[in-house]
Amino acid sequence: MSRWEPNARERLTGAAMELFRERGFDQITVAEIADRAGLTERTFFRYFADKREVLFAGQERLLEIYTATIDAAPGTATPMELVEAALLAVTPVFDQRRDLSRQRHAVISAHPELQERELLKRASMAAAIAAALRQRGVPEPTASLAAEAGAITFKTAWSRWVTDPGPLDLPQLIRETIGQFHALAAPAPASAAGHR
Amino acid sequence: MSRWEPNARERLTGAAMELFRERGFDQITVAEIADRAGLTERTFFRYFADKREVLFAGQERLLEIYTATIDAAPGTATPMELVEAALLAVTPVFDQRRDLSRQRHAVISAHPELQERELLKRASMAAAIAAALRQRGVPEPTASLAAEAGAITFKTAWSRWVTDPGPLDLPQLIRETIGQFHALAAPAPASAAGHR
Repeated sequence: MSRWEPNARERLTGAAMELFRERGFDQITVAEIADRAGLTERTFFRYFADKREVLFAGQERLLEIYTATIDAAPGTATPMELVEAALLAVTPVFDQRRDLSRQRHAVISAHPELQERELLKRASMAAAIAAALRQRGVPEPTASLAAEAGAITFKTAWSRWVTDPGPLDLPQLIRETIGQFHALAAPAPASAAGHR
Repeated sequence: MSRWEPNARERLTGAAMELFRERGFDQITVAEIADRAGLTERTFFRYFADKREVLFAGQERLLEIYTATIDAAPGTATPMELVEAALLAVTPVFDQRRDLSRQRHAVISAHPELQERELLKRASMAAAIAAALRQRGVPEPTASLAAEAGAITFKTAWSRWVTDPGPLDLPQLIRETIGQFHALAAPAPASAAGHR
Protein backbone atom coordinates (compact mmCIF):
# COMPACT_ATOMS: atom_id res chain seq x y z
CA MET A 1 0.00 0.00 0.00
CA SER A 2 1.45 3.36 -0.95
CA ARG A 3 1.76 6.13 1.60
CA TRP A 4 -0.52 8.29 -0.47
CA GLU A 5 -4.20 7.36 -0.34
CA PRO A 6 -6.62 8.98 -2.78
CA ASN A 7 -9.12 11.26 -0.99
CA ALA A 8 -7.90 10.10 2.39
CA ARG A 9 -9.09 13.26 4.16
CA GLU A 10 -12.58 13.02 2.64
CA ARG A 11 -12.84 9.29 3.37
CA LEU A 12 -11.78 9.79 7.00
CA THR A 13 -14.18 12.71 7.44
CA GLY A 14 -17.09 10.78 5.95
CA ALA A 15 -16.34 7.70 8.06
CA ALA A 16 -16.05 9.79 11.23
CA MET A 17 -19.38 11.54 10.63
CA GLU A 18 -21.13 8.23 10.00
CA LEU A 19 -19.74 6.73 13.20
CA PHE A 20 -20.41 9.85 15.31
CA ARG A 21 -24.01 9.81 14.11
CA GLU A 22 -24.43 6.08 14.68
CA ARG A 23 -22.97 5.77 18.17
CA GLY A 24 -22.17 9.21 19.52
CA PHE A 25 -18.95 11.23 19.41
CA ASP A 26 -17.65 9.99 22.78
CA GLN A 27 -17.96 6.31 21.89
CA ILE A 28 -15.84 6.40 18.76
CA THR A 29 -12.08 5.74 18.57
CA VAL A 30 -9.63 6.88 15.92
CA ALA A 31 -8.96 3.20 15.16
CA GLU A 32 -12.64 2.70 14.29
CA ILE A 33 -12.68 5.77 12.05
CA ALA A 34 -9.58 4.62 10.18
CA ASP A 35 -11.00 1.12 9.87
CA ARG A 36 -14.33 2.34 8.49
CA ALA A 37 -12.44 4.47 5.95
CA GLY A 38 -10.27 1.51 4.96
CA LEU A 39 -7.14 3.34 6.12
CA THR A 40 -4.64 3.06 8.95
CA GLU A 41 -4.54 5.04 12.20
CA ARG A 42 -1.19 6.34 11.03
CA THR A 43 -2.87 7.82 7.97
CA PHE A 44 -5.55 9.38 10.20
CA PHE A 45 -2.93 11.18 12.24
CA ARG A 46 -1.30 12.50 9.08
CA TYR A 47 -4.47 14.55 8.56
CA PHE A 48 -5.95 15.17 12.01
CA ALA A 49 -4.47 15.65 15.49
CA ASP A 50 -7.44 13.87 17.10
CA LYS A 51 -11.05 12.91 16.39
CA ARG A 52 -12.35 16.33 17.40
CA GLU A 53 -10.23 17.91 14.69
CA VAL A 54 -12.29 16.07 12.08
CA LEU A 55 -15.11 18.44 13.05
CA PHE A 56 -13.06 21.62 13.41
CA ALA A 57 -10.23 21.37 10.88
CA GLY A 58 -9.97 24.02 8.19
CA GLN A 59 -10.76 27.01 10.38
CA GLU A 60 -7.42 28.74 9.68
CA ARG A 61 -8.22 28.68 5.99
CA LEU A 62 -11.56 30.42 6.60
CA LEU A 63 -9.89 33.08 8.76
CA GLU A 64 -7.36 33.74 5.97
CA ILE A 65 -10.17 34.15 3.45
CA TYR A 66 -12.03 36.61 5.70
CA THR A 67 -8.90 38.70 6.20
CA ALA A 68 -7.79 38.64 2.55
CA THR A 69 -11.28 39.60 1.35
CA ILE A 70 -11.55 42.57 3.69
CA ASP A 71 -8.02 43.71 2.77
CA ALA A 72 -8.85 43.60 -0.93
CA ALA A 73 -12.33 45.21 -0.86
CA PRO A 74 -12.91 48.63 -2.48
CA GLY A 75 -12.27 51.68 -0.31
CA THR A 76 -15.87 52.80 -0.60
CA ALA A 77 -17.27 49.79 1.29
CA THR A 78 -19.00 50.36 4.63
CA PRO A 79 -18.03 48.14 7.57
CA MET A 80 -21.07 45.90 7.07
CA GLU A 81 -20.37 45.67 3.35
CA LEU A 82 -16.85 44.51 4.18
CA VAL A 83 -18.27 41.92 6.57
CA GLU A 84 -20.80 40.71 3.99
CA ALA A 85 -18.06 40.37 1.36
CA ALA A 86 -15.97 38.33 3.80
CA LEU A 87 -18.82 35.96 4.62
CA LEU A 88 -19.74 35.46 0.98
CA ALA A 89 -16.11 34.77 0.09
CA VAL A 90 -15.98 31.60 2.17
CA THR A 91 -19.18 30.08 0.80
CA PRO A 92 -17.47 28.30 -2.17
CA VAL A 93 -15.60 26.22 0.42
CA PHE A 94 -18.94 24.65 1.30
CA ASP A 95 -20.16 23.95 -2.22
CA GLN A 96 -20.89 20.24 -2.56
CA ARG A 97 -20.57 19.86 1.22
CA ARG A 98 -24.13 20.42 2.40
CA ASP A 99 -24.64 16.78 3.44
CA LEU A 100 -21.38 16.72 5.34
CA SER A 101 -22.22 20.06 6.97
CA ARG A 102 -25.62 18.72 7.95
CA GLN A 103 -24.03 15.67 9.61
CA ARG A 104 -21.47 17.83 11.37
CA HIS A 105 -24.23 20.10 12.67
CA ALA A 106 -26.16 17.10 14.05
CA VAL A 107 -23.06 15.74 15.81
CA ILE A 108 -22.20 19.09 17.42
CA SER A 109 -25.81 19.86 18.41
CA ALA A 110 -25.92 16.61 20.38
CA HIS A 111 -22.80 17.35 22.43
CA PRO A 112 -22.41 20.29 24.88
CA GLU A 113 -18.61 20.18 24.87
CA LEU A 114 -18.49 20.39 21.08
CA GLN A 115 -20.93 23.30 21.24
CA GLU A 116 -18.47 25.11 23.50
CA ARG A 117 -15.74 24.49 20.95
CA GLU A 118 -18.07 25.91 18.31
CA LEU A 119 -18.55 29.06 20.42
CA LEU A 120 -14.78 29.48 20.58
CA LYS A 121 -14.58 29.09 16.84
CA ARG A 122 -17.15 31.83 16.41
CA ALA A 123 -15.20 34.09 18.80
CA SER A 124 -12.02 33.53 16.75
CA MET A 125 -13.91 34.35 13.59
CA ALA A 126 -15.21 37.62 15.07
CA ALA A 127 -11.72 38.51 16.35
CA ALA A 128 -10.14 37.92 12.91
CA ILE A 129 -12.78 40.00 11.13
CA ALA A 130 -12.52 42.81 13.71
CA ALA A 131 -8.72 42.89 13.29
CA ALA A 132 -9.07 43.08 9.49
CA LEU A 133 -11.58 45.93 9.84
CA ARG A 134 -9.30 47.87 12.18
CA GLN A 135 -6.49 47.37 9.69
CA ARG A 136 -8.72 49.20 7.17
CA GLY A 137 -9.18 52.09 9.57
CA VAL A 138 -12.59 51.15 10.98
CA PRO A 139 -12.57 52.49 14.56
CA GLU A 140 -13.60 50.64 17.69
CA PRO A 141 -16.19 49.74 18.86
CA THR A 142 -17.62 49.75 15.31
CA ALA A 143 -15.06 47.18 14.09
CA SER A 144 -15.92 44.70 16.85
CA LEU A 145 -19.67 45.26 16.61
CA ALA A 146 -19.63 44.72 12.83
CA ALA A 147 -17.46 41.62 13.23
CA GLU A 148 -19.74 40.16 15.88
CA ALA A 149 -22.76 40.94 13.73
CA GLY A 150 -21.00 39.05 10.94
CA ALA A 151 -20.34 36.04 13.14
CA ILE A 152 -23.99 35.92 14.21
CA THR A 153 -25.14 36.33 10.63
CA PHE A 154 -22.98 33.47 9.49
CA LYS A 155 -24.14 31.22 12.32
CA THR A 156 -27.80 32.01 11.60
CA ALA A 157 -27.51 31.55 7.83
CA TRP A 158 -25.48 28.40 8.27
CA SER A 159 -27.97 26.86 10.71
CA ARG A 160 -30.78 27.48 8.26
CA TRP A 161 -28.72 26.08 5.39
CA VAL A 162 -28.05 22.79 7.18
CA THR A 163 -31.44 22.31 8.85
CA ASP A 164 -33.89 23.87 6.40
CA PRO A 165 -34.61 21.99 3.17
CA GLY A 166 -35.59 25.27 1.48
CA PRO A 167 -34.32 26.37 -1.92
CA LEU A 168 -31.97 29.18 -0.80
CA ASP A 169 -28.25 28.55 -1.09
CA LEU A 170 -25.76 29.72 1.52
CA PRO A 171 -24.91 33.08 -0.15
CA GLN A 172 -28.63 33.87 -0.46
CA LEU A 173 -29.21 32.99 3.20
CA ILE A 174 -26.29 35.21 4.23
CA ARG A 175 -27.69 38.15 2.26
CA GLU A 176 -31.17 37.57 3.67
CA THR A 177 -29.85 37.38 7.25
CA ILE A 178 -27.87 40.60 6.84
CA GLY A 179 -31.08 42.22 5.61
CA GLN A 180 -32.88 40.94 8.72
CA PHE A 181 -30.07 42.27 10.85
CA HIS A 182 -30.37 45.70 9.26
CA ALA A 183 -34.15 45.59 9.72
CA LEU A 184 -33.62 45.28 13.49
CA ALA A 185 -32.13 48.74 13.47
CA ALA A 186 -34.81 50.30 11.30
CA PRO A 187 -37.65 52.19 12.94
CA ALA A 188 -40.84 50.13 12.70
CA PRO A 189 -43.53 51.42 10.30
CA ALA A 190 -46.08 53.56 12.16
CA SER A 191 -48.91 51.54 10.59
CA ALA A 192 -48.11 48.26 12.37
CA ALA A 193 -50.77 47.48 14.95
CA GLY A 194 -49.26 47.75 18.38
CA HIS A 195 -45.69 48.26 17.29
CA ARG A 196 -44.13 51.51 16.21
CA MET B 1 -18.48 32.50 66.36
CA SER B 2 -22.03 32.59 65.09
CA ARG B 3 -22.99 30.75 61.91
CA TRP B 4 -24.10 34.01 60.40
CA GLU B 5 -21.29 36.29 59.28
CA PRO B 6 -22.08 39.86 58.24
CA ASN B 7 -21.38 40.46 54.53
CA ALA B 8 -19.80 37.04 54.19
CA ARG B 9 -20.48 36.86 50.46
CA GLU B 10 -18.95 40.28 49.82
CA ARG B 11 -15.93 39.55 52.02
CA LEU B 12 -15.30 36.25 50.26
CA THR B 13 -15.68 37.83 46.84
CA GLY B 14 -13.34 40.71 47.68
CA ALA B 15 -10.74 38.34 49.17
CA ALA B 16 -10.91 36.03 46.14
CA MET B 17 -10.44 38.89 43.67
CA GLU B 18 -7.44 40.19 45.60
CA LEU B 19 -5.80 36.78 45.66
CA PHE B 20 -6.61 36.00 42.00
CA ARG B 21 -5.00 39.30 41.00
CA GLU B 22 -1.97 38.79 43.24
CA ARG B 23 -1.04 35.24 42.31
CA GLY B 24 -3.30 34.06 39.48
CA PHE B 25 -6.58 32.16 39.55
CA ASP B 26 -5.00 28.70 39.27
CA GLN B 27 -2.69 29.19 42.27
CA ILE B 28 -5.39 30.05 44.80
CA THR B 29 -7.22 27.60 47.05
CA VAL B 30 -10.59 27.98 48.73
CA ALA B 31 -8.82 27.72 52.09
CA GLU B 32 -6.73 30.79 51.24
CA ILE B 33 -9.78 32.76 50.15
CA ALA B 34 -11.63 31.94 53.35
CA ASP B 35 -8.56 32.77 55.41
CA ARG B 36 -8.06 36.15 53.73
CA ALA B 37 -11.75 36.95 54.37
CA GLY B 38 -11.45 35.92 58.03
CA LEU B 39 -14.00 33.13 57.49
CA THR B 40 -14.00 29.35 57.37
CA GLU B 41 -13.97 27.09 54.30
CA ARG B 42 -17.31 25.84 55.48
CA THR B 43 -18.72 29.35 55.23
CA PHE B 44 -17.21 29.67 51.73
CA PHE B 45 -19.06 26.58 50.56
CA ARG B 46 -22.31 27.93 51.98
CA TYR B 47 -22.10 30.64 49.30
CA PHE B 48 -20.13 29.18 46.40
CA ALA B 49 -19.76 25.68 44.93
CA ASP B 50 -16.10 26.34 44.03
CA LYS B 51 -13.66 29.19 43.47
CA ARG B 52 -14.78 29.69 39.88
CA GLU B 53 -18.30 30.38 41.10
CA VAL B 54 -17.01 33.50 42.85
CA LEU B 55 -16.54 34.94 39.35
CA PHE B 56 -19.75 33.61 37.78
CA ALA B 57 -22.35 33.53 40.55
CA GLY B 58 -25.49 35.59 40.14
CA GLN B 59 -26.09 34.82 36.49
CA GLU B 60 -29.52 33.26 37.10
CA ARG B 61 -30.66 36.49 38.69
CA LEU B 62 -29.64 38.46 35.60
CA LEU B 63 -31.46 36.02 33.32
CA GLU B 64 -34.60 36.42 35.43
CA ILE B 65 -34.38 40.21 35.16
CA TYR B 66 -33.99 40.05 31.37
CA THR B 67 -37.00 37.79 31.02
CA ALA B 68 -39.23 39.70 33.45
CA THR B 69 -38.39 43.04 31.81
CA ILE B 70 -39.21 41.80 28.31
CA ASP B 71 -42.44 40.22 29.57
CA ALA B 72 -43.54 43.48 31.21
CA ALA B 73 -42.59 45.93 28.43
CA PRO B 74 -45.29 47.84 26.53
CA GLY B 75 -46.79 46.18 23.49
CA THR B 76 -45.57 48.96 21.23
CA ALA B 77 -41.90 48.17 21.76
CA THR B 78 -39.80 46.94 18.81
CA PRO B 79 -37.52 43.91 19.31
CA MET B 80 -34.43 46.11 19.82
CA GLU B 81 -36.34 48.33 22.25
CA LEU B 82 -37.23 45.22 24.25
CA VAL B 83 -33.58 44.18 24.24
CA GLU B 84 -32.45 47.64 25.30
CA ALA B 85 -34.96 47.67 28.17
CA ALA B 86 -33.71 44.27 29.32
CA LEU B 87 -30.06 45.36 29.32
CA LEU B 88 -30.81 48.59 31.16
CA ALA B 89 -32.85 46.72 33.76
CA VAL B 90 -29.82 44.80 35.04
CA THR B 91 -27.55 47.81 35.41
CA PRO B 92 -28.66 48.63 39.00
CA VAL B 93 -27.17 45.26 40.02
CA PHE B 94 -23.76 46.72 39.18
CA ASP B 95 -24.13 50.05 40.99
CA GLN B 96 -21.32 50.43 43.51
CA ARG B 97 -19.58 47.42 41.96
CA ARG B 98 -17.37 49.02 39.33
CA ASP B 99 -14.12 48.25 41.19
CA LEU B 100 -15.14 44.65 41.74
CA SER B 101 -16.21 44.34 38.08
CA ARG B 102 -12.89 45.79 36.99
CA GLN B 103 -10.99 43.22 39.08
CA ARG B 104 -13.17 40.42 37.77
CA HIS B 105 -12.53 41.55 34.20
CA ALA B 106 -8.76 41.54 34.79
CA VAL B 107 -8.85 38.02 36.27
CA ILE B 108 -10.91 36.61 33.41
CA SER B 109 -8.92 38.39 30.68
CA ALA B 110 -5.74 36.71 31.97
CA HIS B 111 -7.16 33.18 31.80
CA PRO B 112 -8.30 31.41 28.57
CA GLU B 113 -10.44 28.84 30.38
CA LEU B 114 -12.34 31.55 32.24
CA GLN B 115 -12.84 33.38 28.95
CA GLU B 116 -14.49 30.25 27.57
CA ARG B 117 -16.79 30.21 30.58
CA GLU B 118 -17.58 33.86 29.86
CA LEU B 119 -18.50 32.96 26.27
CA LEU B 120 -20.92 30.33 27.57
CA LYS B 121 -22.43 32.89 29.91
CA ARG B 122 -23.00 35.21 26.97
CA ALA B 123 -24.59 32.38 24.96
CA SER B 124 -26.98 31.67 27.87
CA MET B 125 -27.85 35.34 28.06
CA ALA B 126 -28.65 35.46 24.34
CA ALA B 127 -30.72 32.27 24.61
CA ALA B 128 -32.76 33.64 27.52
CA ILE B 129 -33.44 36.94 25.75
CA ALA B 130 -34.37 35.15 22.50
CA ALA B 131 -36.81 32.91 24.39
CA ALA B 132 -38.44 35.93 26.05
CA LEU B 133 -38.76 37.68 22.67
CA ARG B 134 -40.36 34.61 21.06
CA GLN B 135 -42.76 34.49 24.01
CA ARG B 136 -43.81 38.03 22.99
CA GLY B 137 -44.46 36.86 19.44
CA VAL B 138 -41.22 38.04 17.83
CA PRO B 139 -40.55 35.55 15.02
CA GLU B 140 -37.29 33.78 14.25
CA PRO B 141 -34.65 34.58 13.12
CA THR B 142 -35.41 38.13 14.33
CA ALA B 143 -35.69 37.03 17.98
CA SER B 144 -32.28 35.33 17.95
CA LEU B 145 -30.58 38.09 15.97
CA ALA B 146 -31.92 40.78 18.33
CA ALA B 147 -30.90 38.71 21.36
CA GLU B 148 -27.39 38.18 20.02
CA ALA B 149 -27.15 41.87 19.20
CA GLY B 150 -28.11 42.52 22.82
CA ALA B 151 -25.46 40.16 24.15
CA ILE B 152 -22.79 41.85 22.02
CA THR B 153 -23.99 45.29 23.07
CA PHE B 154 -23.80 44.37 26.72
CA LYS B 155 -20.33 42.87 26.34
CA THR B 156 -19.06 45.94 24.49
CA ALA B 157 -20.60 48.45 26.90
CA TRP B 158 -19.43 46.43 29.89
CA SER B 159 -15.85 46.19 28.61
CA ARG B 160 -15.74 49.94 28.16
CA TRP B 161 -17.23 50.49 31.59
CA VAL B 162 -14.60 48.40 33.36
CA THR B 163 -11.57 49.43 31.28
CA ASP B 164 -12.29 53.04 30.35
CA PRO B 165 -12.02 55.68 33.07
CA GLY B 166 -14.42 57.95 31.11
CA PRO B 167 -17.41 59.67 32.66
CA LEU B 168 -20.19 57.54 31.11
CA ASP B 169 -22.05 55.18 33.39
CA LEU B 170 -23.15 51.70 32.31
CA PRO B 171 -26.69 52.69 31.14
CA GLN B 172 -25.20 55.52 29.04
CA LEU B 173 -22.65 53.15 27.51
CA ILE B 174 -25.40 50.65 26.68
CA ARG B 175 -27.45 53.35 24.95
CA GLU B 176 -24.41 54.60 23.05
CA THR B 177 -23.46 51.08 21.93
CA ILE B 178 -26.99 50.38 20.70
CA GLY B 179 -26.75 53.61 18.72
CA GLN B 180 -23.47 52.40 17.19
CA PHE B 181 -25.11 49.09 16.42
CA HIS B 182 -27.92 50.84 14.59
CA ALA B 183 -25.41 53.00 12.72
CA LEU B 184 -23.88 49.82 11.23
CA ALA B 185 -27.03 49.40 9.17
CA ALA B 186 -27.05 52.97 7.87
CA PRO B 187 -26.03 53.55 4.26
CA ALA B 188 -22.65 55.26 3.90
CA PRO B 189 -22.81 59.01 3.25
CA ALA B 190 -21.70 59.69 -0.32
CA SER B 191 -19.44 62.50 0.89
CA ALA B 192 -17.06 60.39 2.99
CA ALA B 193 -13.66 60.00 1.33
CA GLY B 194 -13.45 56.28 0.77
CA HIS B 195 -14.50 55.22 4.27
CA ARG B 196 -17.33 56.37 6.42
